[in-house]
Amino acid sequence: MALRVLGIDPGLTRCGVGVIEVSTTRVPTLVSVHTLRTAADLPLERRLLAIARGLEALIDEFRPDAIAIERVFAQNNVRTVMGTAQVSGLALRAAAERDIPVALHTPSEVKAAVTGYGSADKAQVGQMVARLLRLDEVPKPADAADALALAICHAWRRDGVPAAATSAGSASGTRLTPAQRAWRDAEKSVRTPRLGG
Amino acid sequence: MALRVLGIDPGLTRCGVGVIEVSTTRVPTLVSVHTLRTAADLPLERRLLAIARGLEALIDEFRPDAIAIERVFAQNNVRTVMGTAQVSGLALRAAAERDIPVALHTPSEVKAAVTGYGSADKAQVGQMVARLLRLDEVPKPADAADALALAICHAWRRDGVPAAATSAGSASGTRLTPAQRAWRDAEKSVRTPRLGG
Repeated sequence: MALRVLGIDPGLTRCGVGVIEVSTTRVPTLVSVHTLRTAADLPLERRLLAIARGLEALIDEFRPDAIAIERVFAQNNVRTVMGTAQVSGLALRAAAERDIPVALHTPSEVKAAVTGYGSADKAQVGQMVARLLRLDEVPKPADAADALALAICHAWRRDGVPAAATSAGSASGTRLTPAQRAWRDAEKSVRTPRLGG
Repeated sequence: MALRVLGIDPGLTRCGVGVIEVSTTRVPTLVSVHTLRTAADLPLERRLLAIARGLEALIDEFRPDAIAIERVFAQNNVRTVMGTAQVSGLALRAAAERDIPVALHTPSEVKAAVTGYGSADKAQVGQMVARLLRLDEVPKPADAADALALAICHAWRRDGVPAAATSAGSASGTRLTPAQRAWRDAEKSVRTPRLGG
């Protein structure tokens, strides 16, 4: 019994997608990792369509029990934030259309979950992702490592407080799929050593 | 021979959609106007899915020759800007998926096009939209009037400089549908009195 989570680090130029499974002992395993790219000289609407179709194809291929997306803030890099927000909207819609529970996590939540502190840098997140997933190398680019970190963060948090608690970002934190319920029940019956923090 | 334009004022709580046609003499006529609404207490992903499906249904019903969307800036109202950007991403994707040319216009461009100056207020835009479309009342809510103003702005600008000239927002300003080409050719053969500015 494993829970499969697909993490998305939204972006127009590079959109990271990481799929992991966690066992009932909270050990995460890599399933697949991808980076969707679009050329900066394509019209915006073509870039969004390409990313949306890429995300939907990966979701349909890996059929995750849950999807986790990095929460975008208006205060982020102004040059890229609108494209990032647009991609996150496409990802949220794809999840809702498939009735897959989806949650948003902030970069701080993700860093805290995988490294133990919320202000870790990209390199530290990548190294911890590689260690947690028992990989020989740090996943590249950083967007791919971040997507895996998001998926791990979500898998570890899903029993706790829903991550998306603000009015602008409520998410289906309380709806569990049958797989998630089974996972939670199974987990209750075993000791659960806590990794990464 | 008329050019049909569908304008979208993106928003999560209220998304305005206005459809107009312009004749070869640049006179705009109302085809249809709608306001898509979602409840603030729905999960974000459900709101986005509902708006996306609503937009797609209207696009498929009215089959516009072009789509015009209000350009969202990161500096706008921080509380609502992310939802607005996400909806604009869904609208752009819907246009690209249907191969319908799409352009982004700033609020200033729209105000200047319909009222003659870029800092007009909402009431002035609404009044001018009503006058241009020969309506007895100002379309309500403001989102609906804004969507119609966007569509009028786009119809009047389509021969000029593409509205979306920044790298983050390139749009298919140079691709004309057969209907648009025919419209442009027809227009060249008649006198074109310039309205609204």
